[in-house]
Amino acid sequence: MMVYLDHSATTPVDPRVLQFMEPYFSEKYGNASSLHSFGTEARKAVEEAREKVAKVIGAKPEEVAFTSGGTESNNTAIKGAAFAARKGHIITSSVEHKCVMETCNWLQDRGFKVTFLPVDRYGAVSAGDVKAAMRKDTIIVSVMHGNNEIGTINDIKAIGKVCRDAGVPFHTDVVQSVTKVPVDVERMNIDMLSISSHKIYGPKGAGALYVRNGTKLEPLMHGGGHERGLRSGTENVAGIAGFGEAIRLADAERSTVMPRLEGLRDKMIKDVLKIEDSWLNGHPKMRLPHNAHFCFRRIEGEALVMRLDMEGVAASTGSACSSKKLEPSHVLLAIGLKPEEAHGSLRLTLGKQNDAGQVKFATETICKVVAGLRAMSPFKR
Amino acid sequence: MMVYLDHSATTPVDPRVLQFMEPYFSEKYGNASSLHSFGTEARKAVEEAREKVAKVIGAKPEEVAFTSGGTESNNTAIKGAAFAARKGHIITSSVEHKCVMETCNWLQDRGFKVTFLPVDRYGAVSAGDVKAAMRKDTIIVSVMHGNNEIGTINDIKAIGKVCRDAGVPFHTDVVQSVTKVPVDVERMNIDMLSISSHKIYGPKGAGALYVRNGTKLEPLMHGGGHERGLRSGTENVAGIAGFGEAIRLADAERSTVMPRLEGLRDKMIKDVLKIEDSWLNGHPKMRLPHNAHFCFRRIEGEALVMRLDMEGVAASTGSACSSKKLEPSHVLLAIGLKPEEAHGSLRLTLGKQNDAGQVKFATETICKVVAGLRAMSPFKR
Repeated sequence: MMVYLDHSATTPVDPRVLQFMEPYFSEKYGNASSLHSFGTEARKAVEEAREKVAKVIGAKPEEVAFTSGGTESNNTAIKGAAFAARKGHIITSSVEHKCVMETCNWLQDRGFKVTFLPVDRYGAVSAGDVKAAMRKDTIIVSVMHGNNEIGTINDIKAIGKVCRDAGVPFHTDVVQSVTKVPVDVERMNIDMLSISSHKIYGPKGAGALYVRNGTKLEPLMHGGGHERGLRSGTENVAGIAGFGEAIRLADAERSTVMPRLEGLRDKMIKDVLKIEDSWLNGHPKMRLPHNAHFCFRRIEGEALVMRLDMEGVAASTGSACSSKKLEPSHVLLAIGLKPEEAHGSLRLTLGKQNDAGQVKFATETICKVVAGLRAMSPFKR
Repeated sequence: MMVYLDHSATTPVDPRVLQFMEPYFSEKYGNASSLHSFGTEARKAVEEAREKVAKVIGAKPEEVAFTSGGTESNNTAIKGAAFAARKGHIITSSVEHKCVMETCNWLQDRGFKVTFLPVDRYGAVSAGDVKAAMRKDTIIVSVMHGNNEIGTINDIKAIGKVCRDAGVPFHTDVVQSVTKVPVDVERMNIDMLSISSHKIYGPKGAGALYVRNGTKLEPLMHGGGHERGLRSGTENVAGIAGFGEAIRLADAERSTVMPRLEGLRDKMIKDVLKIEDSWLNGHPKMRLPHNAHFCFRRIEGEALVMRLDMEGVAASTGSACSSKKLEPSHVLLAIGLKPEEAHGSLRLTLGKQNDAGQVKFATETICKVVAGLRAMSPFKR
């Protein structure tokens, strides 16, 4: 048996999505900017996908620009606002995805001021802290919705309200949360929002950036002026079509899939926490329904992941994007863990094809492997 | 019959390429950065593709970074060099693809100096002009290989030599030329080079940027540090795998496909030029083997393309990326055409599935449609 429990890293493409994409490779292969019928056929696919994305987040289709994925969307939102303002102050948090952290670090090096807000022990950002950090020259606030490592969900509506009141554009990364919990740009006071296709059973290489009409943004990529000038480059028609269908399906099936995964996840948490010297990271309740994140004392996370893989469980020690680096997770340090505690972490993220038998197998395997590694460990209790 | 003669806008995915990609959607769906076996399987696909791309252009695999396509590659090369230098002078030409032109315009607005070199009446850039424009503060030269509209091929080796001698990094856009004519980064003195997958029978949404070891470049996208820090964001594994296979196939088949297309193209040029008040744009010999580009007096290019589409021929009035705009092509103006002449343009770009019968049909249709439009035209001779 091979049980995949790393759905926050990436998901398989839903077979219905793949089927939906297939005509756009070798048959309906036009460039969506071409004037002829091959082009209009491709354009139609792109615009239908745009409507699907817009509908799920409560936006107008023309406010949705397609990108190559979450990293590009986040880079475009933050650098785009910064380039448009030319100077100023940025507010973000200390638990954002690497692509937000590194973008802000880079802008800081280029003369922008950045406040990295602290978080509470669950990894949540306080709306009050956002308000307190607001300056006259603040040009954008970027705070994520669901954390990609520990799963904690921020009160985006409250943070968005603070930004709205201050007249500062608010961007949020909903890569991990969209189609798992409700996301609505109106209700949640969101001005910009990033989505990735491959986290929601769509293909890799596609994503979207929602930009509320009137938001000032410079494009990251210049060229033919595609996507209303926000993102030049030939549209990835098959990928975009697949992304649109993926988000439509995942949203439609959310109310049946997510409660089931949440139940499996809660059982898994209960059973894994029977391991001694283990604990759950992230908020116990305000968390993504498919996410569990543990620490085990006297365990090295990478060794754990490698051994689990050999035993038939695919998991992660943190974010896939930085999991090959040896530094401890910035998220775990931000919630107050010591580096040696942060090193013993395990992220398990469920997906819709997981069932109770798989989760039982994974739980038993984790217990067995943790015990085995501890028996070999030089760090005795 | 529907004859597609717009292969410079985009190409159908080769069925062998699609077959090669398919396992990476729903079976081998791992994130190439994950430590477990799903991840290593994806990583293997990405690295194999990197070797295929490197081999075709005579590079080392570690000098190839995957991107979302040609526009991103060109933006990364030029902005990356500019951001790394923080200030300075850029040399490019007046016939580059929009994504180079607009990138340079944007940088000019941000304090960089840009020289847009003129071209001769065929659209070629002179190496002597590059040398004469070189300044002490020149930070990058970007001159395209094969022009995407009129097909003229620049003497990249000579231009590269000038840059090499001056110690200035040389970037070239080979999106239209690679696999159609030989491209070799060593022989041609190239430091950076942009490729797009969907122009060579690979999927849309994938491309590459070659960056010679030692070239100073800031990434356009920050994040998890993928692609040796040059391009963050989860790798589009299926797209990259398809791109690698596409470039391998197209390169392997170049010596059989291109002479055949060149023969069909030459016959087409001969027959289309029988139309009175018509001429060929671009160099008569130093041009991409699949490209023909005409002007017809007293014809509006957009009307011609729409009518041709109705009659079964898919063609373009210029670059797809800007073909929905009403300004005359900057390339045609740069080679000295008047705006009213530039408006009557038609680009025909052949692909490997085109045969003599299709080309004959297309030629006859063009003759018929041009005559029909002229009969209706208010601009009589």
